[in-house]
Amino acid sequence: MNISDTERNAIYRNIYLRRDVRSDFKPDTIPDDVLMRILEAAHHAPSVGFMQPWDFIVVKSTEIRSRIKDGFEQANHEAAQLFTGERREKYESLKLEGIMESALGVCVTCDRQRTGKVVLGKTANPEMDIYSTVCAVHTIWLAARAENIGVGWVSIIHNEVLREALHIPEHIVPIAYLCMGYTTKFSETPELEKKRWQSRLPLEPLLHYDKW
Amino acid sequence: MNISDTERNAIYRNIYLRRDVRSDFKPDTIPDDVLMRILEAAHHAPSVGFMQPWDFIVVKSTEIRSRIKDGFEQANHEAAQLFTGERREKYESLKLEGIMESALGVCVTCDRQRTGKVVLGKTANPEMDIYSTVCAVHTIWLAARAENIGVGWVSIIHNEVLREALHIPEHIVPIAYLCMGYTTKFSETPELEKKRWQSRLPLEPLLHYDKW
Repeated sequence: MNISDTERNAIYRNIYLRRDVRSDFKPDTIPDDVLMRILEAAHHAPSVGFMQPWDFIVVKSTEIRSRIKDGFEQANHEAAQLFTGERREKYESLKLEGIMESALGVCVTCDRQRTGKVVLGKTANPEMDIYSTVCAVHTIWLAARAENIGVGWVSIIHNEVLREALHIPEHIVPIAYLCMGYTTKFSETPELEKKRWQSRLPLEPLLHYDKW
Repeated sequence: MNISDTERNAIYRNIYLRRDVRSDFKPDTIPDDVLMRILEAAHHAPSVGFMQPWDFIVVKSTEIRSRIKDGFEQANHEAAQLFTGERREKYESLKLEGIMESALGVCVTCDRQRTGKVVLGKTANPEMDIYSTVCAVHTIWLAARAENIGVGWVSIIHNEVLREALHIPEHIVPIAYLCMGYTTKFSETPELEKKRWQSRLPLEPLLHYDKW
């Protein structure tokens, strides 16, 4: 089951073309079979002890989304206060979510008790189930890009808002709320690089050999 | 910058063929340019506030790897005690790491202070930098698979062992230690499914619409 050079190039292209998308969403709906391909791929993400601790809540309701949008507005207002001067001005000019205008939202959660209390691979690192769920989130991102669908991770929101809006049970941890939809374009560079918020670091200083 | 249907198929194939590899490593070394392609791809993972909080420590030294292996043995012994009866017997029969026989190790870490104290997107969810680093880990996994290189995440090890063996500074958090190398084969199904430790869950009960 070798991956060919042609396939490899496509895989790298997908990794390099993936973007965090918060604007330029088109109103087009995502066909169910396309959405299912993406979520089925996410379900094939790696997980500690093959625990598959994720659940996926697909959010289309305008009413529920507007509650999530309110939660974003509140957290975003709190966040803006933490920046000062020019930096705050720039922060406030950025569009950081596409909750209402994207085709749908997907909330990805982690069930920390999914396969019992003792999980292979999680004994020394209890947070491994959370990390597995993040792998599922990233798989959604990449699979969506392969379908030419943009995804934005809305992290400026308190988990309690998601928990209440989506009726998430007490023992389940919200990990990500994603906005998803077809877009008019994918930016050539990350949005925060383009807007000169933060530049790409050179890789070389981040590489170490045998020891830090 | 559209992804074609052919490319899309390659991307899904990569996601489905990726495995957690702990055995069947070949002794072949990984050429530097191949390793760099993989790490450059990881450096293009998504990150909160474009923070790029990761570092990559490439570990080839036999001496350092054998210290890490000792750390695994200790944590694995502790873990085995948590299972009883038949389950413990099965646990002890599993090969859960390939530290010494893989071509190299890569430790992926998170610098929580990389771009200052206040980071866009991390104010309501401070763990977003950790999640970004996990996205880089998963990107390594997928890029390596695209190069027909197997990766195994060694989570049965205490972070303190990695910290000491690799001289990781106090303010840096180890996220993953990966074994990486060419393999004689990629298993058709996940190792833990094949060994009947845990079966794949049906996706349908994990899907929710608008509310849990």
